[in-house]
Amino acid sequence: MTTAHHHSIHPLDDALALTSAAPGQYEGRTTPAYWNMVGPFGGVTAATLLQAVLQHPDLLGEPLSLTVNYAGALTQGPFTLQATPVRTNRSTQHWTLSVLQPDAEGAPVVTTTATVVTAARRETWGAADTPMPFVPAPAQCKAIPPAFPVEWLRRYEMRPVAGSLPAQWDGGGESSLSQLWMRDAPARPLDFCALAAMADIFFPRVWLRRARQVPAGTVSITVYFHAGSALLAQTGAGYLLGQARAQEFRNGFFDQAAQLWNEAGALLATSHQIVYYKE
Amino acid sequence: MTTAHHHSIHPLDDALALTSAAPGQYEGRTTPAYWNMVGPFGGVTAATLLQAVLQHPDLLGEPLSLTVNYAGALTQGPFTLQATPVRTNRSTQHWTLSVLQPDAEGAPVVTTTATVVTAARRETWGAADTPMPFVPAPAQCKAIPPAFPVEWLRRYEMRPVAGSLPAQWDGGGESSLSQLWMRDAPARPLDFCALAAMADIFFPRVWLRRARQVPAGTVSITVYFHAGSALLAQTGAGYLLGQARAQEFRNGFFDQAAQLWNEAGALLATSHQIVYYKE
Repeated sequence: MTTAHHHSIHPLDDALALTSAAPGQYEGRTTPAYWNMVGPFGGVTAATLLQAVLQHPDLLGEPLSLTVNYAGALTQGPFTLQATPVRTNRSTQHWTLSVLQPDAEGAPVVTTTATVVTAARRETWGAADTPMPFVPAPAQCKAIPPAFPVEWLRRYEMRPVAGSLPAQWDGGGESSLSQLWMRDAPARPLDFCALAAMADIFFPRVWLRRARQVPAGTVSITVYFHAGSALLAQTGAGYLLGQARAQEFRNGFFDQAAQLWNEAGALLATSHQIVYYKE
Repeated sequence: MTTAHHHSIHPLDDALALTSAAPGQYEGRTTPAYWNMVGPFGGVTAATLLQAVLQHPDLLGEPLSLTVNYAGALTQGPFTLQATPVRTNRSTQHWTLSVLQPDAEGAPVVTTTATVVTAARRETWGAADTPMPFVPAPAQCKAIPPAFPVEWLRRYEMRPVAGSLPAQWDGGGESSLSQLWMRDAPARPLDFCALAAMADIFFPRVWLRRARQVPAGTVSITVYFHAGSALLAQTGAGYLLGQARAQEFRNGFFDQAAQLWNEAGALLATSHQIVYYKE
């Protein structure tokens, strides 16, 4: 049976839609489906930057690392994205990127900067040194409704394993560790952009560690891709296990270290971010 | 007593020396003191990029995060460094940077790209969630001579605690964890640039985990600064405990996660890098 729903575009693909008038120059727009409190979900902005690289006619290889710096919240509407391959080596390629939007007077303002490295990867000796923690399977972990009325949370199926939001905001937190099973909602075969977005899915560690829901926002995130496209294809629309913890909270900023494994236990990506908090 | 040595410039300060003809435009040069095998020690390149930001007349606050992408080895001699504050907010400032050198035909080529975020930090609630491991004091750990005849290794005093270079390159490694006490040689009061450089001091994790001395080089490094200048001043010329481990080795690249504490146990910086290896 063919239904209208069958033919509709996935909200992530809709958010990632870019048009390009010239190589490296893109036009996009924010979408309501991934709206957070004062701008789009940072993960989808990261994914959009990566999408520009993947669409570029000069692309070499596949994503290896991605760093995104959130200079200011995007406002609702169109944006311009620039992606430049500043150096291409035999097996690696270095990219610099930025997102711009007009300010109140119409002058372009940088909202986001990024660097990407892509690489042609080879078969080598390898070792997995961070085994997936032993946790219950996704089906054994209950899917939770969005904890807050923000639209982007409805774009993910989340099945917490440990370190959910505090039941009481009483200042009594003890650990910053969270583990959860996750996938796009509706389910969607995993690709680099979806993986980049999911690296930013974790709620602010300060909420958990401090048990206070203080203002917080990512300043900079880095994602290292350990998986190539073949492993992503094997992962398909299955769940990922995400794990995140902070190492230090000090003077208004904390860091977060995260890992994302597929259900078979392969470490697909590791990620880090530094996050502003007010407390 | 005043001696000639007393007045000589520290090799790190010599390497960081930049002249500026216009805001954001700098001229520097590599120095023999930090030479590695086919270019300068990557840590000193990272420190030089940070130095440009710190010297910039428009600087807001202190370093919060630094990402450096090594696009190609610097050749011996002069280089141009560009540092641009692309957006200044009330309490954060976003920088994009690049290092250029002329190619054989004299055309400028990008050797390195970077982004930096600086921030005006405030007193807040805080928590140290990664206690310094319990290890013997620096005096109890023997300082080692440089393991290889490269000049930059002589610029650091290293006192390994665990995870030294394999005694035999026999393919029999089991762990990627290293811990060592370190400081500049000669000793030098710690600052942001010295800290950034030391975040890159660890030998390639693949050498330890694989027990084979294969070609390897950092592609991208990120440093998050948890310390402000007051804490760095307190740390002075004391030792730092550095810890590094890999999470995944696959298809020619591995990642490294690192922490740097001062002797009093304060976590000054956390760092991550993605590293090319041939094996």
